[in-house]
Amino acid sequence: MRFLSEEDSAALVTEELAYGAVREALIAAVAPTSTTFPALPAHGSDPRNRFTLKSAASANLAGVKIGSYWPDNTTGPRHNSTIILLDQDTGRVAAVVEAAKVNAYRTAAADAVAANTLANPNATTLTIFGTGHQAFYECQALAKIRALDKINVVARTEANGHAFVAELRNANLPATLTEAEQAVTEADIIVTATTARSPLFEADWVRPGTHVASMGSDAKGKQELPPDLLITASLYCDLPPQSTTIGELQHAPKHRDITAIGHVLTGAAEGRTAPDQTTVFDSSGIALQDLYIATALLGLIG
Amino acid sequence: MRFLSEEDSAALVTEELAYGAVREALIAAVAPTSTTFPALPAHGSDPRNRFTLKSAASANLAGVKIGSYWPDNTTGPRHNSTIILLDQDTGRVAAVVEAAKVNAYRTAAADAVAANTLANPNATTLTIFGTGHQAFYECQALAKIRALDKINVVARTEANGHAFVAELRNANLPATLTEAEQAVTEADIIVTATTARSPLFEADWVRPGTHVASMGSDAKGKQELPPDLLITASLYCDLPPQSTTIGELQHAPKHRDITAIGHVLTGAAEGRTAPDQTTVFDSSGIALQDLYIATALLGLIG
Repeated sequence: MRFLSEEDSAALVTEELAYGAVREALIAAVAPTSTTFPALPAHGSDPRNRFTLKSAASANLAGVKIGSYWPDNTTGPRHNSTIILLDQDTGRVAAVVEAAKVNAYRTAAADAVAANTLANPNATTLTIFGTGHQAFYECQALAKIRALDKINVVARTEANGHAFVAELRNANLPATLTEAEQAVTEADIIVTATTARSPLFEADWVRPGTHVASMGSDAKGKQELPPDLLITASLYCDLPPQSTTIGELQHAPKHRDITAIGHVLTGAAEGRTAPDQTTVFDSSGIALQDLYIATALLGLIG
Repeated sequence: MRFLSEEDSAALVTEELAYGAVREALIAAVAPTSTTFPALPAHGSDPRNRFTLKSAASANLAGVKIGSYWPDNTTGPRHNSTIILLDQDTGRVAAVVEAAKVNAYRTAAADAVAANTLANPNATTLTIFGTGHQAFYECQALAKIRALDKINVVARTEANGHAFVAELRNANLPATLTEAEQAVTEADIIVTATTARSPLFEADWVRPGTHVASMGSDAKGKQELPPDLLITASLYCDLPPQSTTIGELQHAPKHRDITAIGHVLTGAAEGRTAPDQTTVFDSSGIALQDLYIATALLGLIG
């Protein structure tokens, strides 16, 4: 059995590796030879400590990601992630990859892959809701696919907002703390990376042509986007059955068309067709992303 | 992260260790602080290759067992098993234990624990249906808890039956190939360890006082016992919600009482109350057995 420790995988991962692996995974997700099994929510001895089992199979990979959230953990990250690849010849565990930092890259990469396809090519202003760990990686990944000249940070508290703006500027990203309405009005791309359970902004603040990505909604009851946006915008996601169950698109009207981004990436479905088309991408997070990024990391060390 | 390879765990496991760990797990399974999450069936790149994720939490353990069945694997066992323990302080993976051979011990141990409680103390004749890998471990484990003087082997083919009888005799177990009706009539304890999808024998062949354990039924549609037996016998299992979904007791009448064996082990519920009472134990296999046996194995090496 191969093993990559958290230290190993964190040292190996890059935005480029994550982008390539996640793009491949999103395409694999729509292949008829792939299956994503239902996400299974579980918990630790203390029921407040939660973990989720996400498993999938594609034409050449199968395995499981254990994603954990231990809210009171003070000895390390509260979110952890371990990817388990099965040997397709024997069914035995082929590799275990600790992937807490990798998980942040892989999640941001899905939004970068979708935005690279769906956002207007001349997008320069990004608005980010949320100031947590993941929000940072979202900004970094999006800065790799568009020439951003402004990042509007919308924060729940001014203190968090200032700290996050400083963190982004420290990484040479052009961040400014901005109120929600102005931030949305100015945005070419909006990313929500929060734990919200109600809409973060108003639908009529969104300029036509904006690309909106909801990253934070990953459970029943979570909600980041205004419902009216889901009535009018073109809707995309990683995996429709999961996105409409635990993702942001659980709040989409039942009659709306929802396109798996993999079909856009292969050319089987249309993405953006006009500069003033508003697009929404919901990233619910799928196990194939984990299996492909773990495989890419293991490939680096032969 | 600690790792026990298949070679390590196979060298460490004993019937005594398995019996103790599984007894503890079956008691833990009925504690209000324990939760067994739904078993999640999945498959490999080739959908004929299957794996199941079984996860659970008790007052001090939580984790997952990946049980795989690769029917065409010729380079090793077709059944494999890997147990993953989560660190309850951080949510990170604390240990990975390869457990293909261990799994055979842990499954047999559940039947031994139940039989030790439910079978008549003077039981001497065991009848085993099935001649596969697991059947051998069942006989060995039951021979540890009752002074068996006869083991009736019921086989689908004579060749399999003779080979299995030879294997048991080689291990100093008093095995004889016997026809189903005679084997059932003579039995004090019956164990079914098959992949059957219809009853293996008739209910009226079973003498009052016999203890019957169904090991093989672990999926919807599987069935080893005659339905009439489930109408008249006292019914026990490892975990009622799982046993009535994927175990043998999916075929039990809805109105019947089903007792978790853990309650019998703690004295909270009655087991056998008379020598002529017929008892049925359904072992559907629960993740706590895996978590406890993995912990016991890791405890051996400090």
